[in-house]
Amino acid sequence: MLRVAIIGASGYTGVELARILCNHPEFELTAATSRQYAGKPLSEVFPNLLGKTDLICENLSIDELCSRADLFFAAVPHKTAMDLVPQLLEQGKKVVDLSADFRLRNVATYETWYQEHSSPEFITEAAYGLPELYREQIQKARLVANPGCYPTSIILGLAPLLQNGLIDTSSIIADSKSGTTGAGRAVSLGTLFCEVHDGFKAYKVGGTHRHLPEIEQELSALSKGDITISFTPHLLPIARGILSTVYADLTSDISENDIRKLYRTMYENEPFVRIVPEGTFPATQHVRGSNFCDIGFTIDERTNRIIVISAIDNIVKGAAGQAVHNMNLMCGIDETTGLQGAPFFP
Amino acid sequence: MLRVAIIGASGYTGVELARILCNHPEFELTAATSRQYAGKPLSEVFPNLLGKTDLICENLSIDELCSRADLFFAAVPHKTAMDLVPQLLEQGKKVVDLSADFRLRNVATYETWYQEHSSPEFITEAAYGLPELYREQIQKARLVANPGCYPTSIILGLAPLLQNGLIDTSSIIADSKSGTTGAGRAVSLGTLFCEVHDGFKAYKVGGTHRHLPEIEQELSALSKGDITISFTPHLLPIARGILSTVYADLTSDISENDIRKLYRTMYENEPFVRIVPEGTFPATQHVRGSNFCDIGFTIDERTNRIIVISAIDNIVKGAAGQAVHNMNLMCGIDETTGLQGAPFFP
Amino acid sequence: MLRVAIIGASGYTGVELARILCNHPEFELTAATSRQYAGKPLSEVFPNLLGKTDLICENLSIDELCSRADLFFAAVPHKTAMDLVPQLLEQGKKVVDLSADFRLRNVATYETWYQEHSSPEFITEAAYGLPELYREQIQKARLVANPGCYPTSIILGLAPLLQNGLIDTSSIIADSKSGTTGAGRAVSLGTLFCEVHDGFKAYKVGGTHRHLPEIEQELSALSKGDITISFTPHLLPIARGILSTVYADLTSDISENDIRKLYRTMYENEPFVRIVPEGTFPATQHVRGSNFCDIGFTIDERTNRIIVISAIDNIVKGAAGQAVHNMNLMCGIDETTGLQGAPFFP
Amino acid sequence: MLRVAIIGASGYTGVELARILCNHPEFELTAATSRQYAGKPLSEVFPNLLGKTDLICENLSIDELCSRADLFFAAVPHKTAMDLVPQLLEQGKKVVDLSADFRLRNVATYETWYQEHSSPEFITEAAYGLPELYREQIQKARLVANPGCYPTSIILGLAPLLQNGLIDTSSIIADSKSGTTGAGRAVSLGTLFCEVHDGFKAYKVGGTHRHLPEIEQELSALSKGDITISFTPHLLPIARGILSTVYADLTSDISENDIRKLYRTMYENEPFVRIVPEGTFPATQHVRGSNFCDIGFTIDERTNRIIVISAIDNIVKGAAGQAVHNMNLMCGIDETTGLQGAPFFP
Repeated sequence: MLRVAIIGASGYTGVELARILCNHPEFELTAATSRQYAGKPLSEVFPNLLGKTDLICENLSIDELCSRADLFFAAVPHKTAMDLVPQLLEQGKKVVDLSADFRLRNVATYETWYQEHSSPEFITEAAYGLPELYREQIQKARLVANPGCYPTSIILGLAPLLQNGLIDTSSIIADSKSGTTGAGRAVSLGTLFCEVHDGFKAYKVGGTHRHLPEIEQELSALSKGDITISFTPHLLPIARGILSTVYADLTSDISENDIRKLYRTMYENEPFVRIVPEGTFPATQHVRGSNFCDIGFTIDERTNRIIVISAIDNIVKGAAGQAVHNMNLMCGIDETTGLQGAPFFP
Repeated sequence: MLRVAIIGASGYTGVELARILCNHPEFELTAATSRQYAGKPLSEVFPNLLGKTDLICENLSIDELCSRADLFFAAVPHKTAMDLVPQLLEQGKKVVDLSADFRLRNVATYETWYQEHSSPEFITEAAYGLPELYREQIQKARLVANPGCYPTSIILGLAPLLQNGLIDTSSIIADSKSGTTGAGRAVSLGTLFCEVHDGFKAYKVGGTHRHLPEIEQELSALSKGDITISFTPHLLPIARGILSTVYADLTSDISENDIRKLYRTMYENEPFVRIVPEGTFPATQHVRGSNFCDIGFTIDERTNRIIVISAIDNIVKGAAGQAVHNMNLMCGIDETTGLQGAPFFP
Repeated sequence: MLRVAIIGASGYTGVELARILCNHPEFELTAATSRQYAGKPLSEVFPNLLGKTDLICENLSIDELCSRADLFFAAVPHKTAMDLVPQLLEQGKKVVDLSADFRLRNVATYETWYQEHSSPEFITEAAYGLPELYREQIQKARLVANPGCYPTSIILGLAPLLQNGLIDTSSIIADSKSGTTGAGRAVSLGTLFCEVHDGFKAYKVGGTHRHLPEIEQELSALSKGDITISFTPHLLPIARGILSTVYADLTSDISENDIRKLYRTMYENEPFVRIVPEGTFPATQHVRGSNFCDIGFTIDERTNRIIVISAIDNIVKGAAGQAVHNMNLMCGIDETTGLQGAPFFP
Repeated sequence: MLRVAIIGASGYTGVELARILCNHPEFELTAATSRQYAGKPLSEVFPNLLGKTDLICENLSIDELCSRADLFFAAVPHKTAMDLVPQLLEQGKKVVDLSADFRLRNVATYETWYQEHSSPEFITEAAYGLPELYREQIQKARLVANPGCYPTSIILGLAPLLQNGLIDTSSIIADSKSGTTGAGRAVSLGTLFCEVHDGFKAYKVGGTHRHLPEIEQELSALSKGDITISFTPHLLPIARGILSTVYADLTSDISENDIRKLYRTMYENEPFVRIVPEGTFPATQHVRGSNFCDIGFTIDERTNRIIVISAIDNIVKGAAGQAVHNMNLMCGIDETTGLQGAPFFP
């Protein structure tokens, strides 16, 4: 058994990592850190874990952490991560970082959207943890930057179109809707039950969400050109799930069937991407609790636009599940280990 | 008191009409028809109405209907409406029809999207019941075609841009999300609680929703040119509310402030349109239970697109409330009568 | 128009008071206080009120308050209320206090469950604001203690049984379920969307909820004896609504029909109590947004227990609506003014 | 691999059985029957299963069924089950029946609450599938009657009290609340999203729910006496979960601590019962998606009543999960196989 630790276990990503890891046959969860809950059983912070783990939340130094585990999931906020992660790497550890700190290859871009970067030298070596696009780099990496939730849904949805040059890259509009776990577990007025329940709204309208440069970086890499998109996130009154509806002008008169073949070809051997049957479209409730990304699409003949719809569970494929997938790859074990559960419906 | 009847009272539009009408100071609800529930008190079908109305659901002939009321809300399915409405008009009654049967001015378009039209001669005289655009026609009409819920949200959102020629009309994409009351009260697998709850999905993807020709008819009229748009409806796990996120390429370098002035000017005297403050955007929970349409927008400078967001309560401004608004106008009474309640939050 | 002010307008009770008052034909809302939001338009704090009120939230001294209004709704926490309310009374104002500070007639009981009481002399004069039981006192009062939400639902449900001595008063068990608005708008982990949504739990189990002495005080008064009950509150994943399921052993062999007559007789002229038809039971969705208390019951012949079920909207009949009802009575205007809207369904 | 079939795969219990079984390492799902969906891939009926199973729904005769599998989960309505199950047994198969047909040991009781029983001779041999109480019988059985969801939650909650004779058995009141999956997937007005969402109600009030004789049978067996209880089911606006709040008068002055020891002792080796820490209480969201039954309790000193609260996921521990648990026991494999996943939160 490989020893793994969760740094920052008290958020929704933390509890989901713990849920997956406490049933993972190759990894043993040996430490979970939380400043806020230090001294408390993790199963008291998250009673769903009662009987599944005896871990106590701790506030550990780097040295203590390194003595306790060899593999790390860093589920701390950006900025905290950039200080912490290099110290783990220097002690020979493997790290999947779930923050934004090592996702953007261009330091200037990072500093425009976030703040100064204290360890830019590690950006270059970090693999971008989308296994469908970077499997080989991930397998060799000691540091993987786990993708954002919105980027995961949008990039996987568009990749076959961009790789095959089928769309006008200036026409892309991604209208995304996320469940409220995406907003985290920190208390705030905007995520109170009565503010979210039975309602729906957009936020960060007009190209201001921090996932935008990450999305554009990866779409640009796929198309081998600079891509600027419109991206509007919305808040859904559900716990888990992102559904992205992506619009783009087709530049080719390729048929829907041929596009379907390209999608099937690209994702044929991918264990966690499902192309849904023709005439059907993904729904968040069909990926709930799983590491799947479901993708469907159709051509709107009236406007010659393609509409691609992708759905993920934002805290599994969009966070904790993808992180475990990456760690599996980094450790050379079967990449689906611990992630084979079917989605929960209803 | 003017005598009004609801034809087809057993759906969600019916109960909302009854809720509004039982407190309307100028209208007296004198009949409510339902084949399915004939003989049952309306307050047994909808226990929220207990103590507010003593009406019994009835299955009435046209003659009986005409002896019972002078104003009619037809809340029956399309096709049924086109047979029923002319008979009421011929007896000198005023009708607000909530079906699609008299919304499309082009009979051929209607017949493409629906089925053969049995009374096309009434299409011409019907006023399209969006008071913000057709107030004068409505005031003079004996037949008003009450707009669809999606069209209401999208047309009001785009009207100032189209009237002022500010956008590329070939670039319009409307990504709309609706609460489940929009699917009606007929039992069906797809609207069971466990199928909708805690989930989210698109439907009628690719330009196949029947509200599309209605939206395009009105957008075209506003821009004085033919407009084809992309429109994707989605199903929200909420009861009431539509939020439309609409994207269009700006063709002018007009500032956001100047656009805001155009919106404010156009809707300044409109009792049921609210332009939300700069930097904020509408949410369905802020119009819940009211006849308001809230509109906000911003310019995405990175792509030179404008993003307009509008929110309505789909069974009030998108159906029953707008119908009462229209009837108020047709009867020459204060148009806000019975509709002044503030939205419910939370 | 009578001038009314809301003290503590930034909570869910505050916004509901504002919603009701901005359409009240006899009251004019002239001030709304909030320390946290002082200087902000109330319609910015609660965008549902946009266009319905121009009030700015203020932080006002007692003297300023008294110069601005004659009637006051105090929607501040207990303890704050006991300091504030006497000062308003001393300046000749009428006050409906929504806190617990003047509900318990026994100061010692208050001090056991809350803390020291700084103005016990006002307890005696306060009328307990349940109009169905204390209408005459309320009409004459200058201070009304607005009942708690759970007490309202339980007391109204049991009153006819206790007044007629039909149940074993030692056998009463009230199992109550409340929507999350009942927990207030202060940010806290326990009321985050993801903690409450799609879940259900009990809290304050074992007779520790502060509404217990209030419930027992009123049940005891009705039965003219000391009553101790079991009361378990639960948290529902809904915004509005309390449903109480109350069990008691029958001590008489009176028939269900005769009991129904007693309920109907007691509540016959009550504008806000509805006895639901035999064989049906209340549901929170049928009182949503209204000031109704719906009551239903049946006898379980197998155990000779009566089961009474009552439903209210906890922030209307359980708070803001009942407060306005009380103020209407205190001012001698039609008691239903501003409260006649039918419940929203769905 | 043992070959298993699901008879009646198109309901919520069916899809949950399929979800569990498609990851079960000892069972191979070899057939799934559905009249309604015969010919359709199961993953088309339930898109969450896409990629997890290639099974096609079939309408199979008994002989075909018996040639395809050795173990059967019968998830068909009562009455259908009593005809079907004996035929499977006669061909030497093992069956877990999820209907009510073999749960009640007294045929007359069954016939009072349901209808005539066509195969009463199989009632005697059926084991009642609550492993915590009947493990040995289940291990030897060829037919297991899987318990109802409400009974599971109530019986496990009360067992230690009854076995130890600590409560007045005439005083038991079970106030239970269930998620809407409990109402099944058949289309009906009462389970439409808009009827259930944001609402709450009781149903089958007054001792008329068919789970009542089953609950009383098992409570009576535990106490070795006849028990009659009050039981009120309620419908929660959630998908999964039952929470039962059970009240009983204590007849002993045993301390809460000593009772806790009895609970811990009884359930110490039970893999799927968790006694929650003192001062905390179960919540449905903490057992979601798992086979756990969580139990908490406290003594209300003021009334000398004990309040026991238990929570299960009604389609796992209350149906499909418990069925797999039973089948594991019947086959002599590790009883937790396929059921070890931690609950999903949030």
